[in-house]
Amino acid sequence: MNKNNPFTVVKKDQLRSLGERKLIDTIKVWLGKTNPNTPYGIGDDCAVIPNSNSQLITVDPLIYGRHFDDTVSAYHAGEKLLKRNISDIAAMGGKPTCCVISLTLDPTVKITWLKNFYLGLKDTAQSYAIKIVGGDIAELKGSLAATLTLLGEKTTNRFLTRHTAKSNDLIFVTGKLGLSLPSKHHYTFTPRIKEAQWLVKKMYVTSLMDISDGLAKDIHSLIPKKAAACIYADKIPLKRGATVKNGLCDGEDYELLFTVKPSANLKLFQAQWKKRFPDTPLTLIGHMSPASKKNKTALNLSTFQGFEHLA
Amino acid sequence: MNKNNPFTVVKKDQLRSLGERKLIDTIKVWLGKTNPNTPYGIGDDCAVIPNSNSQLITVDPLIYGRHFDDTVSAYHAGEKLLKRNISDIAAMGGKPTCCVISLTLDPTVKITWLKNFYLGLKDTAQSYAIKIVGGDIAELKGSLAATLTLLGEKTTNRFLTRHTAKSNDLIFVTGKLGLSLPSKHHYTFTPRIKEAQWLVKKMYVTSLMDISDGLAKDIHSLIPKKAAACIYADKIPLKRGATVKNGLCDGEDYELLFTVKPSANLKLFQAQWKKRFPDTPLTLIGHMSPASKKNKTALNLSTFQGFEHLA
Repeated sequence: MNKNNPFTVVKKDQLRSLGERKLIDTIKVWLGKTNPNTPYGIGDDCAVIPNSNSQLITVDPLIYGRHFDDTVSAYHAGEKLLKRNISDIAAMGGKPTCCVISLTLDPTVKITWLKNFYLGLKDTAQSYAIKIVGGDIAELKGSLAATLTLLGEKTTNRFLTRHTAKSNDLIFVTGKLGLSLPSKHHYTFTPRIKEAQWLVKKMYVTSLMDISDGLAKDIHSLIPKKAAACIYADKIPLKRGATVKNGLCDGEDYELLFTVKPSANLKLFQAQWKKRFPDTPLTLIGHMSPASKKNKTALNLSTFQGFEHLA
Repeated sequence: MNKNNPFTVVKKDQLRSLGERKLIDTIKVWLGKTNPNTPYGIGDDCAVIPNSNSQLITVDPLIYGRHFDDTVSAYHAGEKLLKRNISDIAAMGGKPTCCVISLTLDPTVKITWLKNFYLGLKDTAQSYAIKIVGGDIAELKGSLAATLTLLGEKTTNRFLTRHTAKSNDLIFVTGKLGLSLPSKHHYTFTPRIKEAQWLVKKMYVTSLMDISDGLAKDIHSLIPKKAAACIYADKIPLKRGATVKNGLCDGEDYELLFTVKPSANLKLFQAQWKKRFPDTPLTLIGHMSPASKKNKTALNLSTFQGFEHLA
């Protein structure tokens, strides 16, 4: 085998032996100072563009056979690609502005399929006042994949990151979790952009992210040092028919997960939310506990796996 | 076959029946006003970000089996991915600032391969003061592809686009063309960023692009309405061993192609160039002729094909 060949049958040399989270940590080491500290680098839903402090960038692909299949129409696939990126901009409290799309296509892809895919993209872009400004087309046998890079900007004087929760903060989630695939939620969802833009203005909201790989996995990004997340099984808002495990592990919820200072006026916050977003459930699911005080009735999150990207 | 299935065996319904240039024109129609007019949308080396007028965005992938193979080391593949995007920023006269990278990987990719790929990316980023601020990792069986989105900014009061040449403008090219693959130029090249940043300040330079799909194909982007490009076979600067056809059609030259007002002081321009860039050849290869005056000794470019992305 040529020494440049990228693949190996030796299991310990394969990327899968690292897994996704360790791989990302390793990439940060490889990149050194070329990768600035979060939120200007790797480690949040978006990166804040260095030297701008007011612009966001995020990238997410949509791959046939991975993120959609023949149960999803081309139009819905186009919508999904843009909406999952919008959800990342929302997760920092930003406003999406413009995007570029890189396509990798087999030449036997139907023209009408691609037309409907672009119509889904266009209609979604129009709804959110996003411009589609460029892209690239490459041919690859057997492939149908699109990678979208979305830019965003500030809507107030701050972005909300994943790394700013404190011990004793309360943990909230929007919507209902689980069963994203069978319920078609994974492409019919509405990104929680209005809700997030409202939250970022509330200074008692301390951190924010969107749930893409399942609550059990994603919550780890919000946990402060020397603390643990106490989440209660009976508090987790579930889609009809979903089990607690579905709610914790299925992924593709595209709901907001955020923390609130314990000193906040919760009654007022919840009343304001209900008035402003009557159709978006808001649920208090637990709190960030100093590790020494971990509550025994809380879920042991380490026994639940979220979506693993390199399995 | 499921109606959502993206592929078809009916040749007239396949993307390949459109070809790349027609496909891009069709995508512009599909997107309507969601795609602003160039240079704020599709149609140039980069897009100028709407409402900024000072920022650029470009995206280019690097796919195993398409843009590199086992003759290229992982380190050089990383370099190539970033350099081909830098070449697009150069082609507008900009300065690269930061990028995001989306990876689609088979889990059997070697950890050391990916490490060396990232080291190639990092070293290139450091050379050009580019920050690598984020990305995404998705798993896909059999795949090794990376899509890089690069942002850039102004270095002077304008960007140079493809759509601003006039009849009678002179046509110049940097470097030597052809045989990019066998000469390894496709990954050992140096993006012409210094040269481009110098050219954008010269107001007699009227348009600029980089050659990625071959001179014969790419020159069409610069030709003004009701004009023709008169290029002379004996003027084209060729790599050692290259034929005129290689120089016109091979692609991946990553050289600058630009136009200069006929009123410019050519002797001064060429003397300044030689002093500033002694190692970068500069060649006058022809001019933009009003169509009625097309010179019969010029090449008939329509008989030469550049690189076709959807063949």
